[in-house]
Amino acid sequence: MLTANYVGENTIDIREAEPAPPAPGEVQLRVAFAGICGTDLHILHGSMDARVSLPAIIGHEMSGTISALGDGVTGWSVGDAVTVMPLDWDGTCPACLAGNQHICQNLDFIGIDSPGALQASWNVKASVLVALPPTLRLDHAALVEPAAVAVHDVRRSALVAGEKAVVIGGGPIGVLIATVARRFGGEVVVIELDAARRRAVADLGFAVLDPAAVDQVEWVTEWTGGAGADVVFEVSGAASAVLGATSLAKVRGRLVVVAIHPTPRPIDLQRLFWRELTIIGARVYERADFETAVDLLDEGAIPADLLITRIVPLAETASAFADLAEGRAMKILVDCQAGSSDDSGAAS
Amino acid sequence: MLTANYVGENTIDIREAEPAPPAPGEVQLRVAFAGICGTDLHILHGSMDARVSLPAIIGHEMSGTISALGDGVTGWSVGDAVTVMPLDWDGTCPACLAGNQHICQNLDFIGIDSPGALQASWNVKASVLVALPPTLRLDHAALVEPAAVAVHDVRRSALVAGEKAVVIGGGPIGVLIATVARRFGGEVVVIELDAARRRAVADLGFAVLDPAAVDQVEWVTEWTGGAGADVVFEVSGAASAVLGATSLAKVRGRLVVVAIHPTPRPIDLQRLFWRELTIIGARVYERADFETAVDLLDEGAIPADLLITRIVPLAETASAFADLAEGRAMKILVDCQAGSSDDSGAAS
Repeated sequence: MLTANYVGENTIDIREAEPAPPAPGEVQLRVAFAGICGTDLHILHGSMDARVSLPAIIGHEMSGTISALGDGVTGWSVGDAVTVMPLDWDGTCPACLAGNQHICQNLDFIGIDSPGALQASWNVKASVLVALPPTLRLDHAALVEPAAVAVHDVRRSALVAGEKAVVIGGGPIGVLIATVARRFGGEVVVIELDAARRRAVADLGFAVLDPAAVDQVEWVTEWTGGAGADVVFEVSGAASAVLGATSLAKVRGRLVVVAIHPTPRPIDLQRLFWRELTIIGARVYERADFETAVDLLDEGAIPADLLITRIVPLAETASAFADLAEGRAMKILVDCQAGSSDDSGAAS
Repeated sequence: MLTANYVGENTIDIREAEPAPPAPGEVQLRVAFAGICGTDLHILHGSMDARVSLPAIIGHEMSGTISALGDGVTGWSVGDAVTVMPLDWDGTCPACLAGNQHICQNLDFIGIDSPGALQASWNVKASVLVALPPTLRLDHAALVEPAAVAVHDVRRSALVAGEKAVVIGGGPIGVLIATVARRFGGEVVVIELDAARRRAVADLGFAVLDPAAVDQVEWVTEWTGGAGADVVFEVSGAASAVLGATSLAKVRGRLVVVAIHPTPRPIDLQRLFWRELTIIGARVYERADFETAVDLLDEGAIPADLLITRIVPLAETASAFADLAEGRAMKILVDCQAGSSDDSGAAS
């Protein structure tokens, strides 16, 4: 089988490997599709070399079917359609004991800290499997993981129906957050600099602002009858966006920091104080978020076809990374059963 | 009567004035004691000149008795011991309509935006009065306002009994927060650079750390069995303290920013993300906080005698500001019925 390996120096290497039988408690998955996300790009660019062991098979957004069961695995059958919630916690640290296993203090994030999905056959613990309904297409199901991020972010915001939310950043996660927030009853505006992304967001029926053309504080103030937004999601990762985000929120409003900011960012604490704002950190997801994401994709609430720019065979994984790095796609899926463009999408 | 006036240029001027009769809906107060706080120092130093109209009688921490009732005032009698919750809201802005009158978008903070308590006789709307029990000494009652700030901060933190809290900064508000957090069932450690303040805090039975001598992250991690603190209160106002505060909190821990930070501060958003922290803004108080503060002072839970370094007559208000600016006192009260040291404390 083929595997896509990050080997350092900004390089993905496609290699041949023998599928391994599943260990006790594990299942062997026939990976159908794997999505590439911003974190994978960070890995490729060397920002996470302290966490990955080379060569590293990365990838943590996927769909597939069970191809073999290890000893002791019950409740699953060969052929079941599944996705993986790529979190393996120790169950014994203070965070786990307090019920926050998803952000275990010694978390193994599968696909970063241990081997991931960019291979034709992948063995994982049965405990990380999440069942997929037969009605959900496997390409769409590869979006369950990023959709679960969005569900988690919206739940962390405590948004309730009728509230107004601003999403700063109209990339894949921004679009998913806007979609989930609307599905949960919120009114949403998306702020995005890139014209092509603005068009895509507008096509989904969202209000969308170009921050270079519109005074966003004035717009949001008017939109909310002088109050400010109930919730602001910072998804852009830009320092200026974080600094300005507090000005968009109402008295007692909530700002959820979704983007990863590797260095400390200036925050307007005077505004935090003056309006009694809350700034909320959100990381990954809990199982309930994953299951909700499956439901939202299955009911068609997530614009999967808009988000999936294209599907490439595993052998062309490196070019998919390059296109994403250049901003030439929203989401690219890797067909992990296809070796080259010739047989992409074929059931091999 | 005497009045203490901020007249600009770092100057307090003591002037004679005629007491005015109360307008309809107002009461006339015979001010007993007025406390001076950090905000008053900011005013003296010119940082809030945009908000104050010169000459400005400032002061918003006080106790006194009702000396006259204006037309239409019911439920109060001459001689009643009272304090003032110095917030006058418009009742019509989005924040008020949402139930957050205490941080009205057009708030009149009495003693800053309108005349305050540093005078022998003061007229206020009856709606801002809070009754004092006969068992509470009037000098102690001048601490109700800062104690209400602490009650509000602790309530904003959602601290529950058994949780562990770190208070960064052992000045008057830090001590009050530590006291309220302990009274509400929390275990508290105070971090303070100044040796004299550390001794005062230790005398109240709190654990106290010198951050120049102890690795505070290591200490808190060990104290909490590897988890980190449930709640961190940032009361120091130092940029380095804000940046480091996130490292003291557990997974899903809460950081309450109490100190006023006039310029944006770098915040470790990576840590916010990694541990799903929440950063909470807290400003002033609600009426319930004020009433709880009265109860805590009346039951002796607040170390009033330790906090009140001394009481000076109104004529010596300027020297009290100077001593506070130099860090030579925790809290100085002004006896608003005493003209000079000769008759300080006399019932005039």
